[in-house]
Amino acid sequence: MLWYRNLIKISTATRPKRPITTNLLLTSLSHFSTANEAPAVAQPSGLGPAKPNEKPRLVVLGSGWAGCRLMKGLDPNLYDIVCVSPRNHMVFTPLLASTCVGTLEFRSVAEPIARIQPSISSAPGSYFFLANCTGVDTETHEVQCETITEGTDALDPWKFKISYDKLVIASGADASTFGIHGVKEHAIFLREVHHAQEIRRKLLLNLMLSDVPGVSEEEKRRLLHCVVVGGGPTGVEFSGELSDFIRRDVHQRYTHVKDYIHVTLIEANEILSSFDDRLRRYAIKQLTKSGVRLVRGIVKDVKPQNLILSDGSEVPYGLLVWSTGVGPSSFVNSLGLAKSPGGRIGIDEWLRVPSVQDVFSIGDCSGFLESTGKPVLPALAQVAERQGKYLANLLNNISKAGGGHANTAKDIDFGDPFEYKHLGSMATVGRFKALVDLRQSKEAKGISLAGFVSWFIWRSAYLTRVVSWRNRFYVAINWLTTFVFGRDISRI
Amino acid sequence: MLWYRNLIKISTATRPKRPITTNLLLTSLSHFSTANEAPAVAQPSGLGPAKPNEKPRLVVLGSGWAGCRLMKGLDPNLYDIVCVSPRNHMVFTPLLASTCVGTLEFRSVAEPIARIQPSISSAPGSYFFLANCTGVDTETHEVQCETITEGTDALDPWKFKISYDKLVIASGADASTFGIHGVKEHAIFLREVHHAQEIRRKLLLNLMLSDVPGVSEEEKRRLLHCVVVGGGPTGVEFSGELSDFIRRDVHQRYTHVKDYIHVTLIEANEILSSFDDRLRRYAIKQLTKSGVRLVRGIVKDVKPQNLILSDGSEVPYGLLVWSTGVGPSSFVNSLGLAKSPGGRIGIDEWLRVPSVQDVFSIGDCSGFLESTGKPVLPALAQVAERQGKYLANLLNNISKAGGGHANTAKDIDFGDPFEYKHLGSMATVGRFKALVDLRQSKEAKGISLAGFVSWFIWRSAYLTRVVSWRNRFYVAINWLTTFVFGRDISRI
Repeated sequence: MLWYRNLIKISTATRPKRPITTNLLLTSLSHFSTANEAPAVAQPSGLGPAKPNEKPRLVVLGSGWAGCRLMKGLDPNLYDIVCVSPRNHMVFTPLLASTCVGTLEFRSVAEPIARIQPSISSAPGSYFFLANCTGVDTETHEVQCETITEGTDALDPWKFKISYDKLVIASGADASTFGIHGVKEHAIFLREVHHAQEIRRKLLLNLMLSDVPGVSEEEKRRLLHCVVVGGGPTGVEFSGELSDFIRRDVHQRYTHVKDYIHVTLIEANEILSSFDDRLRRYAIKQLTKSGVRLVRGIVKDVKPQNLILSDGSEVPYGLLVWSTGVGPSSFVNSLGLAKSPGGRIGIDEWLRVPSVQDVFSIGDCSGFLESTGKPVLPALAQVAERQGKYLANLLNNISKAGGGHANTAKDIDFGDPFEYKHLGSMATVGRFKALVDLRQSKEAKGISLAGFVSWFIWRSAYLTRVVSWRNRFYVAINWLTTFVFGRDISRI
Repeated sequence: MLWYRNLIKISTATRPKRPITTNLLLTSLSHFSTANEAPAVAQPSGLGPAKPNEKPRLVVLGSGWAGCRLMKGLDPNLYDIVCVSPRNHMVFTPLLASTCVGTLEFRSVAEPIARIQPSISSAPGSYFFLANCTGVDTETHEVQCETITEGTDALDPWKFKISYDKLVIASGADASTFGIHGVKEHAIFLREVHHAQEIRRKLLLNLMLSDVPGVSEEEKRRLLHCVVVGGGPTGVEFSGELSDFIRRDVHQRYTHVKDYIHVTLIEANEILSSFDDRLRRYAIKQLTKSGVRLVRGIVKDVKPQNLILSDGSEVPYGLLVWSTGVGPSSFVNSLGLAKSPGGRIGIDEWLRVPSVQDVFSIGDCSGFLESTGKPVLPALAQVAERQGKYLANLLNNISKAGGGHANTAKDIDFGDPFEYKHLGSMATVGRFKALVDLRQSKEAKGISLAGFVSWFIWRSAYLTRVVSWRNRFYVAINWLTTFVFGRDISRI
């Protein structure tokens, strides 16, 4: 650190000026690599296997509901925890739709992993790596990774390997496009914070563009036509938020163009198909009342400014949000592991990948193997969360029983298998209205509610489930200020 | 709107399914333009001259301190107000440095124009256009504009014209690079919210990248070397915030790399040259104590990973923030108007551009003509704000006296000329420390303070000057949560 010490301090006017000795910099820094030289990391390096006298190393791929709930429950005295994920936070997905229109702030729904599991950023052997996993070698107990370098000048991603004692694959699923041309290019998904940011920027841009003199009536109508494809809870909640934004904020603050903005929700089958018929009818009534057009149709092709339905009709749009569910990611497809029905990573009742040692999988990327006789669970936050919680306990117990290190857990009793009990579904459908379905399945008996009481339950339930006190506080403050001042419309 | 009415509603399971009649869409929507067809706007169109029986139209170019303070003070009963700006909000620049490290949220320092002057989004003849002004025709009383379309698929910017009765040019200045190669490509300025977002993303990325296995010691040190060029209030405040972030948050949450992160502030002359010697010494002491390296040097060249000083020495960096003041923008240079010393738009004592009718200019883009005998005022928020306030009153009076329309103000008494009285300078230098210099000039007598009391004055002063109650509330909440929970480190 010679060069740092030699950086000369600015002398004040009262002191005589010393000569600048920054030449020392040149000497001691000349070995710094520049963009054109060889990268600082020549060979793939990484974290070698944990020694028997060290804590076993648990590698978690992913930072969604499953991975984060797992890390929260792990005992850092039992494992060195290493998380590999392309984002350093968990997204509180049920509230993501609210951020698109400014009801909530983006940061209120993002929880840094270091808050969920503090040891990850402070314990000597625990790490968070901002990287994608590119491969898993179950024989040598290693994962291959590549850093995310987006946004840095002339910095190539670099590769490294991590040896694991236990590996948990919780890398999630990809948005389904059903191979429809143009979806990835022109539609916006609603799964990450940057998606919500993009939706918000585009919505505000279109609102302003449509006000510019000389724009034709048709073009205004197109720019302000918001189309949502997919009538599951995400699509319905987003449509509800959007129509509330239009009725409450656009009508007040974009009076020149307020009659041109419309929301259309396109669904191939039934909207909210997992809910009770009565609740579904209620949702349809509420959405229609608040101005959302419900269209039954199948999208065939997506072009930059319009989409084509299977009957050949064209629907022009200014904003297209795509939320038709999820399917296996290319990473999961690339793994040479046995798959569950639907192409997910096949797991047994203890969430293990049974064909190999020390590998587990939870969340949307995994499903029960056919041999277990259990159905593949739906891709829901509550499934992922329950699996993360179960697996954290299981892994803590394995380590306590002396099976934490690689290939040492064969004879350990894994205890009770994972059992999933559905706690019910919730969806908000616009201002002060929500559906709550507390039945375990569509056929079961139980409570199903709709209306203001549900909306209140929905808000309270989410508020208490947001992970940190900081974010609980911010969500409450955001809701309060939206109620008092309206939504923020600055396009930043 | 036939096609909207014809969009078929989703029938619920209990109702018989109606045939899908979306074919109607095809018929009634076939005139919608697609990306490959002719644009919806063929010829430059726009807002024609206001008729004598209509309110005069006042066009404001820009939405900074000057333009926004002006719009706030204008009486919408006297003018139709049209604002043209590439952003729909004002940035509360004195607090921008705090958002880079998460002390404040981005949205807390952005104030939508529609909140500052509500008529802009609701009065029939008032508009906000998200556009750049590309030219001014003072003869025909017209401005030429071009929309911002960033982020939209296949949408070309379109041009339009606006006739004005009164024009206020408040388009601000550009960051000075002194023609140094590589500054625009590799350094980040600190003038807009998106700059602060970029700094934050890069800082968090570098913190995480440097933790990846296999990164050499030198590369770690480079990635985590934050260099600030320019020792004015912005550079000093940013350095102070950064070093506070390092001492308070990085040391706690990035323990693996905490010893590698450093801040260097490079300035060619004195830091905070507008402040009292005693305050400056205090600032230097505080900054040095909190770990900021102060370097006197002149930057000659900026490369992707290092910069070259004029003595030939190299300084490797991971993050480079450039804040060496501002100079005339290319838009101002392109205008065929007489200039003040320093190349700004030349104005007289009433902030008019005297060579033409009905054109005024305020803020960083304007300066007193040499013929006025007055010095060009510094590019400060308080100058811009004071000019905006003065001009709003002047323009309101002109309209009341019947001179609102184009070419009708010749014989109107403009009243007292604009007088600037400097109220003093403030700068924060890290945690709980600030400088407050309440003297009117460096030679004048008056109060100058440094330390905790100043810090308290600084916070209170800014808190009461943030424009809306919503943002005052959020700034207070942000400061409180940062104090209680620490800064947020999620990279979204």
